[in-house]
Amino acid sequence: MAKLIVLYGTPKSTADFDTYYFGTHVPIAKKIPGLRRYEVSSGPVATPQGASQYHMVAQLEFDSMAALGAALGSPEGKAAAGDLGKFATGGVELLVMETREI
Amino acid sequence: MAKLIVLYGTPKSTADFDTYYFGTHVPIAKKIPGLRRYEVSSGPVATPQGASQYHMVAQLEFDSMAALGAALGSPEGKAAAGDLGKFATGGVELLVMETREI
Repeated sequence: MAKLIVLYGTPKSTADFDTYYFGTHVPIAKKIPGLRRYEVSSGPVATPQGASQYHMVAQLEFDSMAALGAALGSPEGKAAAGDLGKFATGGVELLVMETREI
Repeated sequence: MAKLIVLYGTPKSTADFDTYYFGTHVPIAKKIPGLRRYEVSSGPVATPQGASQYHMVAQLEFDSMAALGAALGSPEGKAAAGDLGKFATGGVELLVMETREI
C-alpha cells in the first residue's frame, strides 16, 4: 500500500476552505487514476495537548508507490495538485510513503 | 474512526531509531488499549519533489475519539508517550483526529 498524506495548515477562512474543498477539490481529486481510498479528517485536527497548526488531513491510498507516482504524474493528478493553490491559503504539505501494518 | 498520526523528524541516527522503534517502542505501543490498527511507513517518507523532513510516519487507529482519548490517558498510553524521548532524536509531532472515508 502507498499513501499520499496531505496536511493543510489553518486557512484564512475555514468556511471558505471547506466549501471549496468538498464542492470543488474532492470531485477533481476523485478522478485521479488508481485511487483506492480517500479519507479526510472530520472535525478539528488536534494534538494531545490542544490545537494544532492544521485544519485538515487528507489521505489518498494507492496500491503501490509505482501507482502513486503514476497517479501524481497523470493529467488528473496534475489537475488536483494545481487546484491546491486555489484554496489552501494556510499552506499545504504533501507526504508520500509506502505503508505496512505491524 | 479516530487516528493518532505520529510524524517523526529525521533522527540523528536512522539505524539507531529503527532498532529502538521496532525492538522496544512497538511492543510498548501495541499494549495501548483499544488500538485497532497500527501502520507505519516503510522506506522513505518523501514529498512529490524529493526528500522530506520526516523519517517515519506511524498511524494508530481507534474506534472513536473517546476511545483514542481513553487510550492516551491509560497507563499504557502514557508509557508509550513517555518512551518517545528515548529515540525520537529528530523531534516528533502527534496529531489526533476523527476520520471518514469520502
